[in-house]
Amino acid sequence: MSILLKNCDWIVTQNASREILRNCSVYVEDGRIVEIGGKITCEADRVLNCEKKVLMPGLINTHTHLSMTLFRGYADDMPLQEWLTTKIWPLESKLTGQLCYQGALLGCLEMIRTGTTCFLDMYYFLENIVEAVKKTGIRAFLSHAIIDLFDAGSRDKHQKATQESINFIETLGDPKIGFAIAPHAPYTCSEESLLWAREVAERENALIHIHIAEMRSEQAEFEKKHGLREVEYLDKIGFLCPRVVSAHSVWLTKREVQLLGEKGVKVSHCPVSNMKLALGGVAPLPEMFESKVTVSLGTDGAASNNCLDMFDTMKFCALLHKAHRWDPTVLPAQKVLDLATVEGAKALGIEERVGSIEEGKDADLILIDLKSPNLMPIHGKDTVVSDIVYSAKGLNVATSMINGQILVEDGVFQKLDEEEIYREVEKAALDFAGQPR
Amino acid sequence: MSILLKNCDWIVTQNASREILRNCSVYVEDGRIVEIGGKITCEADRVLNCEKKVLMPGLINTHTHLSMTLFRGYADDMPLQEWLTTKIWPLESKLTGQLCYQGALLGCLEMIRTGTTCFLDMYYFLENIVEAVKKTGIRAFLSHAIIDLFDAGSRDKHQKATQESINFIETLGDPKIGFAIAPHAPYTCSEESLLWAREVAERENALIHIHIAEMRSEQAEFEKKHGLREVEYLDKIGFLCPRVVSAHSVWLTKREVQLLGEKGVKVSHCPVSNMKLALGGVAPLPEMFESKVTVSLGTDGAASNNCLDMFDTMKFCALLHKAHRWDPTVLPAQKVLDLATVEGAKALGIEERVGSIEEGKDADLILIDLKSPNLMPIHGKDTVVSDIVYSAKGLNVATSMINGQILVEDGVFQKLDEEEIYREVEKAALDFAGQPR
Repeated sequence: MSILLKNCDWIVTQNASREILRNCSVYVEDGRIVEIGGKITCEADRVLNCEKKVLMPGLINTHTHLSMTLFRGYADDMPLQEWLTTKIWPLESKLTGQLCYQGALLGCLEMIRTGTTCFLDMYYFLENIVEAVKKTGIRAFLSHAIIDLFDAGSRDKHQKATQESINFIETLGDPKIGFAIAPHAPYTCSEESLLWAREVAERENALIHIHIAEMRSEQAEFEKKHGLREVEYLDKIGFLCPRVVSAHSVWLTKREVQLLGEKGVKVSHCPVSNMKLALGGVAPLPEMFESKVTVSLGTDGAASNNCLDMFDTMKFCALLHKAHRWDPTVLPAQKVLDLATVEGAKALGIEERVGSIEEGKDADLILIDLKSPNLMPIHGKDTVVSDIVYSAKGLNVATSMINGQILVEDGVFQKLDEEEIYREVEKAALDFAGQPR
Repeated sequence: MSILLKNCDWIVTQNASREILRNCSVYVEDGRIVEIGGKITCEADRVLNCEKKVLMPGLINTHTHLSMTLFRGYADDMPLQEWLTTKIWPLESKLTGQLCYQGALLGCLEMIRTGTTCFLDMYYFLENIVEAVKKTGIRAFLSHAIIDLFDAGSRDKHQKATQESINFIETLGDPKIGFAIAPHAPYTCSEESLLWAREVAERENALIHIHIAEMRSEQAEFEKKHGLREVEYLDKIGFLCPRVVSAHSVWLTKREVQLLGEKGVKVSHCPVSNMKLALGGVAPLPEMFESKVTVSLGTDGAASNNCLDMFDTMKFCALLHKAHRWDPTVLPAQKVLDLATVEGAKALGIEERVGSIEEGKDADLILIDLKSPNLMPIHGKDTVVSDIVYSAKGLNVATSMINGQILVEDGVFQKLDEEEIYREVEKAALDFAGQPR
């Protein structure tokens, strides 16, 4: 199967020189980008007219709890502990594999529709999430959340579940679906679980997905208990390494940021969730850049966002740091787009395959339709990236292609019955958590 | 002409008890809401099936510089003074009436498409802006920006232009188009101009549109010069009154907030612009509420936002204050929606006519299409407002009705040739400010 993306108004390549091409085309064959240029002569099975469109790499979301999309809007504007204990945990205790499937399916739809082509997830009922991922065609790294709460029985149970999830995904052999080992956080996992995760990740050549330093109280209590801050402790036990993707990472000292840099740890910054949960502080991105930490972007779950739209996250990211530092030059648009594409790919260790539009890479591509009043005018090459970060919305994405497969075209899912999915999802959500209507 | 909005899944009325109706309909005749109920038997010229849709009042944007939509993305990520002196002011010096028309037309399209039905503007070439407003059918209050820089000649020129703009709009006699008197700011206008504006507003029964305390340096320099802070000074000269809509109002002391409350001044809070320009501080909304200040929401111009989407502004507003106060309960979703609807109407003095869905009010209504993955599921009556504020996007608006006229249906402008407008706007923008392509 070959596809010609013909005469794109602009191509935001995100290649090493951040080249932006005008009136060029991209030829895709068997899932790969084969040729980029002004005049492509290859015959293609399908030709997409890309006039008045921007072609760019699909966005990469490095922190989600996808099945929680089912909880969207269920409980907002509450203090964290009350939110967790009276709303989220009681709901989660009722979760089933089928519900996780429905939530994940909805989440995949939202991401694909709004231009995300790859994500890193942490949750439960992994086999059901795989089913949703396969059905929709998105690229994913999935993980089973290990929360042992320092209990040996729980630890063994989670190790077993993690091993089963690894076996399950390895048996699938789907090049688009990978796994991660996911000790939930240093304050919810025993040292044994953390080190077990580290060891399995090494053996399996896998990512480690963890929450670090999301809350101020979390760090304070951790320090009281261990005499060390979270990152210092993780360094001391030998946990930190380039496989680690650390979500949130807000409440860090400069020394902790330096440690993340020295050990090659990647960060998934989740500005919308952090702001909405109002846990205080702002992740120290400028210091992370200084310490050469790879920073990527995540939405977190829809319960604390409340959507999975990476365009939203890009704009919040840019504006949050400008406002926080009183500096409009901190995190310019190009840098933010980098976090959502090439840096996201680096965080997941797949920068050789995705994150930019370059010959030989996998075709994870999106087209933004410029025929929308919020995307007029485009002044020229120097402003396209600003227009993407500050003006474009996920719903401006017309076409989403993953691994050379067109999943959405002109805003419409090509192989899925969207309305049927909505009916099923709605029914599941209401049976599960609905109010009397 | 009568229209029946039939079987809306939800109606977010924004009436005094903030009622949310399930499976109800609204009957509109000659621009007015005539009946709201579960079973409406009136025959209508048109029936819109509103299943799987939320009906809500159109949003009210109380601070724009609409023609600057032409500058969208032209210059970003720059310090304010450099941005103004090297980019914005040189562009503005080249503006013509025709360019202001094109910019305003584009801005109107974006607002209507994304659910805004009324706005308050401040700019130049008002007659050309009126042309765009009339062509699109939006409700507007327009004003000529008075910047006299303490020069008597300039003052006279601006007074003349203001008077002409008043005459022009009064002669139109269009019930949807009003005017405001707009001394730009206390630091750019002489006391004579400020008091002249106050007097004319009183005589003409009009709004006053002004910027107050946007920047820290502005307040510091003002205090150095006058021995008083901006609001104190405006109070002293007798400027403050319920006609005043004060944009930004970030850098205020508690005493200044109290003065705004005592004098009945309305505020237009512009969170996206404030964050993007990185001028520091956060407008003290909780203190404003305490002092009974009417607070509404504005996007500011597209040069500093970069879009005119009030859904964007609602989410930024909610999250900015939560993050700033470390308090997820500050500015709950319902309060934010109030700012964008009923409080916006109050700020513009039209709360008897718009801002909520009530019998007898003008039909400024929007329908949100729930068949989008970011709007599933709706758990019930208690979560609809959260879903609107935290999850919905302007582009989820399917239908926009202003004064009983359907301007957009299923995302498509009904009486405008969108593509032709884009071609013209793009040509104008590129001739004016474009880069070589």
